[in-house]
Amino acid sequence: MLKEWSKPERPDEEEIEERLEAAKERLKTQQIMIKEKKVPVFVLFEGWGTAGKGSVLGKMILNIDPRFFKVFTMDIPTEEEKRRPFLYRYFVKIPEAGKFCFLDSGWMDEVTRESLHGELREKEYKSRIESVKRFERQLTDNGYLVMKFFFHISQREQKSRIKGLEKDEVTKWRVSENDTWQNKHYEKCLDAYDHYLSSTNASTAPWYIVDAKNKKWALLQVMETLVSGIDTALQNSAMAVPLLQNVFPIEKIPKLADIPLDKEMPQEEYKKELDALQGKLRMLHNELYLRKIPVVIAYEGWDAAGKGGNIRRITGALDPRGYEVHPIASPEPHEKSRHYLWRFWKRLPKTGHVAIFDRTWYGRVMVERLEGFCSENDWQRAYNEINEFEKELYDWGAVIIKFWVQIDKDVQLERFTDRQNTPEKRWKITEEDWRNRDKWDLYEDAINEMMKKTNTTYAPWHILESNDKKYARIKALKIVVEEIEKALYGAR
Amino acid sequence: MLKEWSKPERPDEEEIEERLEAAKERLKTQQIMIKEKKVPVFVLFEGWGTAGKGSVLGKMILNIDPRFFKVFTMDIPTEEEKRRPFLYRYFVKIPEAGKFCFLDSGWMDEVTRESLHGELREKEYKSRIESVKRFERQLTDNGYLVMKFFFHISQREQKSRIKGLEKDEVTKWRVSENDTWQNKHYEKCLDAYDHYLSSTNASTAPWYIVDAKNKKWALLQVMETLVSGIDTALQNSAMAVPLLQNVFPIEKIPKLADIPLDKEMPQEEYKKELDALQGKLRMLHNELYLRKIPVVIAYEGWDAAGKGGNIRRITGALDPRGYEVHPIASPEPHEKSRHYLWRFWKRLPKTGHVAIFDRTWYGRVMVERLEGFCSENDWQRAYNEINEFEKELYDWGAVIIKFWVQIDKDVQLERFTDRQNTPEKRWKITEEDWRNRDKWDLYEDAINEMMKKTNTTYAPWHILESNDKKYARIKALKIVVEEIEKALYGAR
Repeated sequence: MLKEWSKPERPDEEEIEERLEAAKERLKTQQIMIKEKKVPVFVLFEGWGTAGKGSVLGKMILNIDPRFFKVFTMDIPTEEEKRRPFLYRYFVKIPEAGKFCFLDSGWMDEVTRESLHGELREKEYKSRIESVKRFERQLTDNGYLVMKFFFHISQREQKSRIKGLEKDEVTKWRVSENDTWQNKHYEKCLDAYDHYLSSTNASTAPWYIVDAKNKKWALLQVMETLVSGIDTALQNSAMAVPLLQNVFPIEKIPKLADIPLDKEMPQEEYKKELDALQGKLRMLHNELYLRKIPVVIAYEGWDAAGKGGNIRRITGALDPRGYEVHPIASPEPHEKSRHYLWRFWKRLPKTGHVAIFDRTWYGRVMVERLEGFCSENDWQRAYNEINEFEKELYDWGAVIIKFWVQIDKDVQLERFTDRQNTPEKRWKITEEDWRNRDKWDLYEDAINEMMKKTNTTYAPWHILESNDKKYARIKALKIVVEEIEKALYGAR
Repeated sequence: MLKEWSKPERPDEEEIEERLEAAKERLKTQQIMIKEKKVPVFVLFEGWGTAGKGSVLGKMILNIDPRFFKVFTMDIPTEEEKRRPFLYRYFVKIPEAGKFCFLDSGWMDEVTRESLHGELREKEYKSRIESVKRFERQLTDNGYLVMKFFFHISQREQKSRIKGLEKDEVTKWRVSENDTWQNKHYEKCLDAYDHYLSSTNASTAPWYIVDAKNKKWALLQVMETLVSGIDTALQNSAMAVPLLQNVFPIEKIPKLADIPLDKEMPQEEYKKELDALQGKLRMLHNELYLRKIPVVIAYEGWDAAGKGGNIRRITGALDPRGYEVHPIASPEPHEKSRHYLWRFWKRLPKTGHVAIFDRTWYGRVMVERLEGFCSENDWQRAYNEINEFEKELYDWGAVIIKFWVQIDKDVQLERFTDRQNTPEKRWKITEEDWRNRDKWDLYEDAINEMMKKTNTTYAPWHILESNDKKYARIKALKIVVEEIEKALYGAR
């Protein structure tokens, strides 16, 4: 793509000035419409070292009110960031609805740099490209405008810029080792960039190659492309997105109604099993920590199904320095105004740590679907997005354990009544719980559909029959122990 | 304190079990009251390596619902954290109202460790102690319950634990270099801990020394101390806090009414000055970056005083990779439920970076005071808390520049009317602006008091006369340039 690229003709100085003024005026008006229509705009500045990304960026943001944008300069990943999935540090930076976010530079820089320096094997590089494509598509599918600029200069131009900067004491520090390396290996880099650009050029998030030799001309190219991109986004902001077919391996799972709930466990057996399993889990937690394997445990289930008590039997065996429980309530404003998976990305564990989610991203296809908090297109699309999200975690090396804690309607009523009548438990029961109970059948349909569509081989559902809580706790512990053992000692 | 400490008598096993059950039950009930009364609880676990902090912590949190607590294991500071004020990584972790936060370990560990290893000079150590005392007092003054535990074991006990852990392959990694070092230099450490504990033992946040030889007994001491601390906090949760006298050097500042607003600047002079000053600032920004000096610029002023345009003239000279503008709106729920300075701590720049705040922490003594968003005791106390906050930044090495952008009432009316009548500007004017305008006199009184009480020598106010915006912009640039030059080349 880069290799076949032909330079656009550069207008004369006067025309550049004129068109620049016009673009600036457009952008000033557009920022208000972006705000009103709640479109999030994610702008990526990529390209050669010393190509002038920073300086163009600096000029551009002067036309936008500081209330509406953020700039992130991405260095090479920190140790902390390296212990999270590759996309983590980008996902947590996505803009809020109605705001701009500028990245200098983004995930292209990271992927191509590591690939060029031999830190990524061919297979890993390919998997990264797939991750990037899914990530960008998830954003645009959810109404994000993603604009990607590549600042292009020739080897000769780069060389002369490096020399110029190095001559001056004040600007010397701006030349990084990587800039010099790039210039020395220009052809090799060109190949790598070309390949990356071609592989990730999508109609929903296309690449714009910027002729960056002249600064003002570069600014104009970026500004005009940006305002025209925004125009399109504003027109499309209410457009529905076609649904992608699931491409991940799925296994069959029984319907909720077909699950027998008569399983029980006597107190004595429970005590014995609990001690044994917790002891085992305690040892495995050490191993996980040493081998730096992350674990994500997701709990979903009916209200009063016993999720809390079940979770406590897991955490009882864990070292508090190595796990965190994330209770998920309805999203706060700053969470709601971003991609619905954002708040879960933010809460991912570090390698070697365990994150337990008490309610999860599946809220999208349960409560958000049934209460109309998102459109039908949104939740229909979410099954695939969730499968993709979990694939990302799986590829990162995480153990993923998804529990559905199942009870029947009678047991729920018993437990609700008990909560209502016991002063210390009353805070656990709200009006909303009763309202949800009224919608039991609707929920059951939604849950059956959800489990059917997200029961992937790499992140399958586990049913915990919890009419007898003791039985469910032991079953959960057994599954957690098994899955961790598989990850530690099995072939994956 | 530690040296004179005498071991409490350990009850027999049966009594321990009984009292433990009682404390657990209390804690279960208390967590709901903590939630209802919105008391934030900050619990610090400090002490000798291998003293069993983690294991006691792990047992304790099993009695609290995961919705109500967070655990943070503090490692030695990361590179990122080192580029922020010492207290930064602790302040950003303070709990929300109604929730618990457990730290293993906290700021004591950091301060004493660095002091013991010769990384802190005597003067720096003392300044840290002052910071810690102010920090803890600010928390308790704002209704936080701060519980500090020191886990104590003898040199002999520590030695035998280290040996025991090292023997086993599975637990070997738990012995850190620091543990071994401590044991070797036990007496020296004892001195340092003793000094720290004595220096930071306050009636509002006292130290509890835990006899940590026996695990169950240690758990009981912690649990009983915690529940009794919570009892006290619950009783006191509505108590007003005595006001501290200001101890920082203050300079006189004129009242707003006495500031002449007839200053003007002709267009031609403006253009020339702007270019010259922006050029200068551009160079200085480089220097700041190289010398890793952080800059905090705070803008306050009347609505429509021209803050936004003024800020843009500053940022126009800055490299976007090295600055951030933080527009401050009313706090979101997760911000409101924490200490009001929390959201500003979170936004502090790294060393070498510039943070510009469009509205600031002074909201506490202006809008929050006048709209009754906090109690009188709260905003009265805030003057001192703000002086302390800015002192923290100053001691960290930051350049602090505080602007008050001043206009008169007639000019505001003109600008409001213009905004109302110009479609592209209409979003800038809201009902609230008009309501605030009606309270001009009340605000003026509050602002005069605020400037009088917070015009410290290390962070003085600068008035920008902004009836003529051009004059104000040039004045702002001049001050920014001067202050940065002072920091770079002056004696401080």
